[in-house]
Amino acid sequence: MIMRNLPYEELKHFCEGAFQRFGFPQEDSAFITDTLLKSDLFGITSHGTNRIGMYHGQIRQGLIDCEAVPQVVFETPVSAVVDGNRGMGQLVSRFAMEKAMDLAEKSGIGLVTVRNSNHFGIAGYYSLMASERGYLGMAMTNSLAAVVPTFGRIPMLGTNPLAFTFPASPAPFHFDASTSVVTVGKIEVAEKMGKTLPLGWGIGAEGKEEQNPSALLQSIYAGTSGLHPLGGGTEEFGGHKGYGISMMVEILTSILSLGTPSHLVEKEEGQAGVCHFFAAIDPKIFGDPQAIQQHLSGYLEALRQSPKAFGQERIYIHGEKEREAYAVRILEGIPVTEGSWNEMRTLAEDLGLKMEEYFQES
Amino acid sequence: MIMRNLPYEELKHFCEGAFQRFGFPQEDSAFITDTLLKSDLFGITSHGTNRIGMYHGQIRQGLIDCEAVPQVVFETPVSAVVDGNRGMGQLVSRFAMEKAMDLAEKSGIGLVTVRNSNHFGIAGYYSLMASERGYLGMAMTNSLAAVVPTFGRIPMLGTNPLAFTFPASPAPFHFDASTSVVTVGKIEVAEKMGKTLPLGWGIGAEGKEEQNPSALLQSIYAGTSGLHPLGGGTEEFGGHKGYGISMMVEILTSILSLGTPSHLVEKEEGQAGVCHFFAAIDPKIFGDPQAIQQHLSGYLEALRQSPKAFGQERIYIHGEKEREAYAVRILEGIPVTEGSWNEMRTLAEDLGLKMEEYFQES
Repeated sequence: MIMRNLPYEELKHFCEGAFQRFGFPQEDSAFITDTLLKSDLFGITSHGTNRIGMYHGQIRQGLIDCEAVPQVVFETPVSAVVDGNRGMGQLVSRFAMEKAMDLAEKSGIGLVTVRNSNHFGIAGYYSLMASERGYLGMAMTNSLAAVVPTFGRIPMLGTNPLAFTFPASPAPFHFDASTSVVTVGKIEVAEKMGKTLPLGWGIGAEGKEEQNPSALLQSIYAGTSGLHPLGGGTEEFGGHKGYGISMMVEILTSILSLGTPSHLVEKEEGQAGVCHFFAAIDPKIFGDPQAIQQHLSGYLEALRQSPKAFGQERIYIHGEKEREAYAVRILEGIPVTEGSWNEMRTLAEDLGLKMEEYFQES
Repeated sequence: MIMRNLPYEELKHFCEGAFQRFGFPQEDSAFITDTLLKSDLFGITSHGTNRIGMYHGQIRQGLIDCEAVPQVVFETPVSAVVDGNRGMGQLVSRFAMEKAMDLAEKSGIGLVTVRNSNHFGIAGYYSLMASERGYLGMAMTNSLAAVVPTFGRIPMLGTNPLAFTFPASPAPFHFDASTSVVTVGKIEVAEKMGKTLPLGWGIGAEGKEEQNPSALLQSIYAGTSGLHPLGGGTEEFGGHKGYGISMMVEILTSILSLGTPSHLVEKEEGQAGVCHFFAAIDPKIFGDPQAIQQHLSGYLEALRQSPKAFGQERIYIHGEKEREAYAVRILEGIPVTEGSWNEMRTLAEDLGLKMEEYFQES
């Protein structure tokens, strides 16, 4: 399936060029590109540069306004509400997380809820921004509805990812995951691979467990059925817990910001954009940050060293897989499929970009 | 299995008497009793008055100090660290959540992390305390290790419950659940019922899925194996996500407080007690609390009204099952099994309490 590995620098240069053609200033294009490339380098292909086409489509539809300036519409010393004004999700999110970190610098904590934004890429990009400054970082977003509540039939919640990053040594604890059994991206990958889905990922239009990825995707887009929350479609394995954690994300994003809940995202007239939530918390409001970090690092090492399941050789700490993928891909390049490569060629033609100016082997 | 329904007032009177005999003042005994009875009334029998024996045992072992006074050991305008000094978990938690609410009253937000405490009952009791004052309330705790990390073999995490309550009309959104597939209490119930466990709740001493509740409980207590996190024992259904959410609870409780992580609770010398985390957040730091509450209430109603799964008649909002159980049990009494009734009789004898003074039909 993988056609070639594109060198990081070449792909970066191409993406920056594309986003500038879409209408973003050079510096903003570089930031958006960095969020997408970090996802690719982390091995999260579903949220990386192969989404350029999706963003391009949303710009052309008028869902993303390239010239929008996000604004703080409400503020206290510990919190803020941001209206994204339908800007690019990544730019709105950078603005909001920087606001959260500014508040944390002054008050020890900053909580920022955001309405009227767009798809922001990986949640973990923003929680990492906070952890790089020594803060506990959190980032969440709602999304187009894709997840069915326990005992429900149609999608009423987004995949509602939650990222939580806490500084530690040698590397932060970095959790970033959707609150559904799987992401929509995983269904798309299964479809491209021609695979059958395991029982328990989602229900189809007939209201029964759906194992055909194309059929499941179609019913998600049509709003007739969707993915299960983490824990699955029954209470027996805790599906109501995943539903509750997804609700927590929904409340902190769309409810607190007076924004648009997932089931109405892009369905209502006007400002029906995606909503986010960001938190930056300085550990020093709980004592000595070094002692806390050391305490966490010791616990993480105890986890790594604890006995392994039969047939398993390693217990992963959240964030390790991403860092290890990064270390390989930054040197060896980012694998792209023939499909993605052809999409890039088409996009380049549309935008009047010459592939050979960006890629040595084009 | 159910032998009788005990009237609320009678059971309350008995529990208050028992806790006073254990050595707690009248007012503290009443508070502890209220936390246990609320759990019973909510239908969460595993965390109710049938735990009196467990608390009694922990007092006799010296794990719970009836005379301990919790203290704030670190404080900022938005946060505090509490040392529970090995007090009764419920009393430490009341102190800590009141501190969080005092901070929220002054600063809009209060985050309180707690070390050296004990089992606190249901997490939701404390998040409800906050929501009754109009705040977003959160409560979490670590516990004796019972949950195995993804690809691990022995328990390194507690069942690490998380409660999140947000005011709404006609009733708050009230989520309270462990971050494991099931609680240890559910395994105990299956054992009492003589049931076989479904595949996927936990692994046994041999490292394979364990369906015998007694065997699973024994290996949890021995620390040789345990429950799966929410999402199960594989990555295919998101077990690594449940593991990550459990880690988030562990970090906010034992790490932030410089307390004892779940795998060392009651295993290290000295102050190896359970750790908690409480948050109270005033919605007014995000705008008009009435508008936010109304926005949430509308979304909850949309969820209730959305199409049901085939064969299902109702989509529950978190907290509804508990309130409905409460409405029935406050009138009809709290169902107890013959086993629990006999345990109460034995306890009464030990304490020199006369059952007939507390229960009309004894």
